[in-house]
Amino acid sequence: MDTIKAYIEENKQRFLDELFGLLRIPSISSIADHKPDMIKTAEYWRNSLLKAGADKAEVMPTKGNPVVYGEKIIDPKLPTVLVYAHYDVMPVDPIELWKSKPFEPEIRDGKIYARGADDDKGQGFMHAKAFELMVNTNTLPCNVKFMIEGEEEIGSPSLGKWCQDNKKMLKADVILVSDTSMIGKNTPSITIGLRGLAYVEVEVTGPNKDLHSGLFGGAVANPANILARMIASLHDENNRITIPGFYDDVLEVNPDERAEMARAPFNLEEYKKALDINEVHGEAGYTTTERTGIRPTLDVNGIWSGYIGEGAKTVLPSKAYAKISMRLVPNQNHEKIAHLFKKHFESIAPKSVKVKVTPLHGGQGYVAPTNTSAYKAASRAIEDVYGIKPIPFRSGGSIPIISTFEQVLGIKSILLGFGLESDAIHSPNENYPLEQFFKGIEVISLYYKHFAELSK
Amino acid sequence: MDTIKAYIEENKQRFLDELFGLLRIPSISSIADHKPDMIKTAEYWRNSLLKAGADKAEVMPTKGNPVVYGEKIIDPKLPTVLVYAHYDVMPVDPIELWKSKPFEPEIRDGKIYARGADDDKGQGFMHAKAFELMVNTNTLPCNVKFMIEGEEEIGSPSLGKWCQDNKKMLKADVILVSDTSMIGKNTPSITIGLRGLAYVEVEVTGPNKDLHSGLFGGAVANPANILARMIASLHDENNRITIPGFYDDVLEVNPDERAEMARAPFNLEEYKKALDINEVHGEAGYTTTERTGIRPTLDVNGIWSGYIGEGAKTVLPSKAYAKISMRLVPNQNHEKIAHLFKKHFESIAPKSVKVKVTPLHGGQGYVAPTNTSAYKAASRAIEDVYGIKPIPFRSGGSIPIISTFEQVLGIKSILLGFGLESDAIHSPNENYPLEQFFKGIEVISLYYKHFAELSK
Repeated sequence: MDTIKAYIEENKQRFLDELFGLLRIPSISSIADHKPDMIKTAEYWRNSLLKAGADKAEVMPTKGNPVVYGEKIIDPKLPTVLVYAHYDVMPVDPIELWKSKPFEPEIRDGKIYARGADDDKGQGFMHAKAFELMVNTNTLPCNVKFMIEGEEEIGSPSLGKWCQDNKKMLKADVILVSDTSMIGKNTPSITIGLRGLAYVEVEVTGPNKDLHSGLFGGAVANPANILARMIASLHDENNRITIPGFYDDVLEVNPDERAEMARAPFNLEEYKKALDINEVHGEAGYTTTERTGIRPTLDVNGIWSGYIGEGAKTVLPSKAYAKISMRLVPNQNHEKIAHLFKKHFESIAPKSVKVKVTPLHGGQGYVAPTNTSAYKAASRAIEDVYGIKPIPFRSGGSIPIISTFEQVLGIKSILLGFGLESDAIHSPNENYPLEQFFKGIEVISLYYKHFAELSK
Repeated sequence: MDTIKAYIEENKQRFLDELFGLLRIPSISSIADHKPDMIKTAEYWRNSLLKAGADKAEVMPTKGNPVVYGEKIIDPKLPTVLVYAHYDVMPVDPIELWKSKPFEPEIRDGKIYARGADDDKGQGFMHAKAFELMVNTNTLPCNVKFMIEGEEEIGSPSLGKWCQDNKKMLKADVILVSDTSMIGKNTPSITIGLRGLAYVEVEVTGPNKDLHSGLFGGAVANPANILARMIASLHDENNRITIPGFYDDVLEVNPDERAEMARAPFNLEEYKKALDINEVHGEAGYTTTERTGIRPTLDVNGIWSGYIGEGAKTVLPSKAYAKISMRLVPNQNHEKIAHLFKKHFESIAPKSVKVKVTPLHGGQGYVAPTNTSAYKAASRAIEDVYGIKPIPFRSGGSIPIISTFEQVLGIKSILLGFGLESDAIHSPNENYPLEQFFKGIEVISLYYKHFAELSK
C-alpha cells in the first residue's frame, strides 16, 4: 500500500495534467456537431492506454462513435479484469449557470470543475492511472482489458453489437466500472443495483399552424394544454404511474431487504436542505431511498411549446413536445415499457389532436450478487483505503449497457464508483473532488491485488 | 365614388411602395433590441401623415415607445374622426416556417407577405392613404386626427396615460380602428365586441438546481410534471375553467342574441379542414363561434422546462415555466381575473415546489352599440363597396386599448377591419390581400362621407 501511495504522491500533478487534457475536448455525444471531438477523445484515450503500459490499444469503429480497446496480457492463466468507461459527456445547458467554462477545467476548493470531471472522464481516467501505477511498480497481478465507449449518454446504441462482434477478445472474469456514486465520502458504498431506462419523445399536434389565441382560443384544441393534461394523467393521486401494465413485472422487494436497505444513513432534513425544497415528493408507501432505489418512476426531462421568448405573445401553438423518461427496476423490460407507454399515450389523446411517440433509447435494470470474489475484492479494497466497510446499495441511476454486458458477454459487473452527490453530474458546475480521484486510484490498484488473491 | 376609385387606380403602385417601406422596419415591440426600429417606424408614420396632407404631425414620447400624432382641422364645427392604429408588430418565430423573409415584403398570388402586412401596418396604412385621397381630391368632409401607437402587441402600457395627458387634443366624435377581421371577403362584417385579456407568466421551482433524473427521479418533485398537473387542473371535464370566481361577472348572452349570432355563415367542416383537425375542442354547451365570441377562455401560449435540444438528456429540471392567457368577455375585469388566477394557482401548488405568478399585461373587453351614426356610416360604406350589408359580429380577439379609450376619452370606437382569417396574423407567412387593401381605402373614404352626412 505504501508503494501505491508513494507512486500517486509523486505523480499527482502529471495525473491531473493528463486528465485536464481529456476534459478539454467537448465530447458531447448527443449533439451531431461534436462528431470530430468524439474521434479526438477516443484517440486521446488510446494514447493514454499505450503510455500507461498497454501491449496494444486501438480505436475501433462502430456505426456510431468508436470504441477504444486496449489490453495487457501478462499470463493467460491468470484472471482477467475488463475495465469499462465512457469518454462521451452530457450537453452543458444551461450554460449561463456555469461558474467556469465547462471545457476549461479548473480546481476550486479541492475540486475539479468541468463537464465530465466525474461522469465519466474523471472516474474513467482513474483506471488508466491505476493501471500505469501497477505496470510501473511491477505489481500488476492479473490481465487487464479496457473498453472505453463514446455513446453512454445516448444509451450505448452501438456497444452491444460491438461486444457481440468481439466476444472472444473481451473474455474476462469481471467487468470493473467506475461510473456511479458513493452514499458519501464518509459512507462508502458499492452499487449493486441500477434502474433500467425507457426514454421517449412525444409530439402533440393541434392545428396545422400557430394561431392567434384570441381568434381561435377556446374553440380549437391547444396542444400545450392537451399535453399538460395527458402528462398529468400519467400519475394518480398516490403518484403511481397509470400506464396499464406498467407495474406488472416489478418484483416487490421483501420487508427484510427493505429493512436492511433502511440501515444506510440518510438524513431527510439535510437532503431537503441541500435541494432547497420544503417537501419530498414520490410514490405513496415508500421512503425517499426506496423511491429511487427499488421503484420505477416517470419524469418529464423536457417540455416545450409556443412562444418561450421575452414578453407576451398571444399564440395558440400548433405543436407541443415533451421528452419523458421512465426509470425501471430489474425485471421490467425497457422495450415492453416503451411500447406500453406509446400505446397508452396514443389512447388517451383526444380526437382534437394528433400524437406521435418516438422511443429515443432504453436499457434494462441490473442487480449484482454480493457473495462473489469480484464483490468481496471491491469491499476489501474500499475498506483498506477508507477504513470503513462499504454498504451494498441500489442506485436510482441507469447504465443500460451493464445488463447488455451480462446478456452478451455473460460477465457480471462491479460498480466501483467514487462520485459524490455534490458532483452535479449532468448539471452546471459538474465537479469531482481531488480526494476522491486519488483515493479512487488507490482503491482500484488494491482491487486487482484482492481480486487476484480471492480468485486463486 | 368614381373619383375615389380613379385616385386609387392611379396611385396603386406608389401606395404599395410606401407601405413596403413601413413593412421593412422590424418594429417588434416585445423584444428590447428592436427599440431603434420603433423610433424609425414612428418617424416613417409621421412623415407619411405630413405627406398625406396633415396640418401637423409629431412623434410624441411616452415612458415606452412613442405615439405618432397628426391632425387636419378643416372646421372646428364639423365632426371629428380620430383614427387609431399601431405600428408595432409581433415576433416572427418560428422563423423557419416563413416562405419569404418577414421583413422583406413580397407579393405572391395577389397577397402581400410580411410581418405586419395585415396587423396592423397594412390595415393602419389604408387610413393614411384614404386621408391623402380625400385631401388631394378636396373631398374631406370633416376633421381628422391620428394616433398611432407602438405598444399594442404588448398590451398598450403607455397609451392610457398618454390619452389622459392629451385629452383635449384628442377630442373627437368617433374613433376609427382597422385592426380586426371580416368573417370573409364575401361576408363582410363589423366587429362590435372584443374579448378582454389577462396574460400571466408562471414559474414553478422544484430543486435548486437541475438534477440527474435517475438519482433523484421519483423522490423529488419534478416542476415540469407538477406544472403539467397544475395546468391540466385549470379546466374541468366540460372544458370549463376551474378558477374559483372566474365566471362570476360573465354576462350570459340571451337565447335571442345567440340565435341572431348563429345566422352568421359558418361551415364547421371547412373550418376543421383549414386547420387540419379532426375535431374542434371547447366549452361544452356552446358552438365554435360562441366559444370565441361570447365565452372566456384560458390558453397556454408557451411552456418550457428542462432539456429541449436534440437527443436525450436525463435531467430532472429545477424550473418549469408557462405563459398563460385568459380571454375575457365584457364585464369581466382583467385585473380581478389576473388576481383570481394568481391566488388559485398559488393555492393548488403542492408544498414540494415554489410558485411565482407574474401578470404580464391585460385589458378589458368591449361591446359597441349598432344604433349610432358611427356604426351606420360604417355599415353603409361597406355595403357601397362590397354590395352586401355587413354582419355585426363579436370577435374573440382583444384590443385592450379600445375599452381604455372609452374610459379615458369617453369615445366609442368603430372596428372597421378588413383582415381575413387566412391572413395568418401573429403566425408565419402573415399576409394581406391586395384586394382588401385597396377596397379598405375605398370604404374608409366613403365612411367619412356617410359619417359627416349622418352627423348633420
